[in-house]
Amino acid sequence: MANILDQLQATIFDRKRHPRPDSYTNKLFEAGRGRIAQKVGEEAIEVIIASLERDREAQIGEFCDLFYHTLVLMSDLDITLDEVLAELERRHRR
Amino acid sequence: MANILDQLQATIFDRKRHPRPDSYTNKLFEAGRGRIAQKVGEEAIEVIIASLERDREAQIGEFCDLFYHTLVLMSDLDITLDEVLAELERRHRR
Amino acid sequence: MANILDQLQATIFDRKRHPRPDSYTNKLFEAGRGRIAQKVGEEAIEVIIASLERDREAQIGEFCDLFYHTLVLMSDLDITLDEVLAELERRHRR
Amino acid sequence: MANILDQLQATIFDRKRHPRPDSYTNKLFEAGRGRIAQKVGEEAIEVIIASLERDREAQIGEFCDLFYHTLVLMSDLDITLDEVLAELERRHRR
Repeated sequence: MANILDQLQATIFDRKRHPRPDSYTNKLFEAGRGRIAQKVGEEAIEVIIASLERDREAQIGEFCDLFYHTLVLMSDLDITLDEVLAELERRHRR
Repeated sequence: MANILDQLQATIFDRKRHPRPDSYTNKLFEAGRGRIAQKVGEEAIEVIIASLERDREAQIGEFCDLFYHTLVLMSDLDITLDEVLAELERRHRR
Repeated sequence: MANILDQLQATIFDRKRHPRPDSYTNKLFEAGRGRIAQKVGEEAIEVIIASLERDREAQIGEFCDLFYHTLVLMSDLDITLDEVLAELERRHRR
Repeated sequence: MANILDQLQATIFDRKRHPRPDSYTNKLFEAGRGRIAQKVGEEAIEVIIASLERDREAQIGEFCDLFYHTLVLMSDLDITLDEVLAELERRHRR
């Protein structure tokens, strides 16, 4: 199941290389790194609020938004999910 | 590679059921949902700062911290990564 | 000059007691505490981004937005600016 | 009462010009703008959490921390509270 993250980043990288006029992902890349980073922060805050006072369905939706925007920021920085997960594995194997 | 996230959540759920005295994960669960949610917010802010002014290695490290604390919050809410990724797939297949 | 904060909170408290149909402040109160708290978080993130990569005018504008939304949250909690500033004075006199 | 903010910023500017070895404010200035901005974000998140699940005393304390760190960031950017409040007044007089 976790492969969806790989597939999603592949799509995001593809949009970065081959922009499409109506793509939300391309709107983010065009708005620039500061704006993408801001969205990651905003989605984290929505995760916080949902965790403390909303229902399970809303919580799942906010986690989705956080993952997606985090992958866009990672891609804007030319960092692959694999690099991050390799480091995560290294840290938690200890 | 993305399976590390599944494995990491399995370990987090195991710590939740069988606490260990020196586990950082258990310290988070004991501190409660508000504190775990706060950590997700703090790590998102560190991701923002790192994206705008730190090097690639620091950025990768901050993404790791954000993923880990997000998984702890998810687990505290009894939400599985699979549920979140299934919803993420549903959204992005459209 | 700092009296503008007192005047602004007086206006916010007045809107809380006597809602007006087109007031942004009343829209926030109606959206509820979670939404107001979320706005404070979002404005803090805009302050961060502006501090690191935008110009002085944008920074001043973001500080204004942060102050205003912080006053709305304070008012929603029925906390007065005077209570907060009295505590701030107490702490920094030490 | 709001004059405490002016006095506090005057003290912060004084520390900036004349650092003291044990001053927390000077530790922040030395850590740099990214770190100060990060603290503003962290304090905003503590305000959010306190607003949703802590008591009135804790909420007042978190508002104090947010004001203080916001003033440090403002001072690091060489922006005065008066400039911010003049703009806030201009906006809300409309």
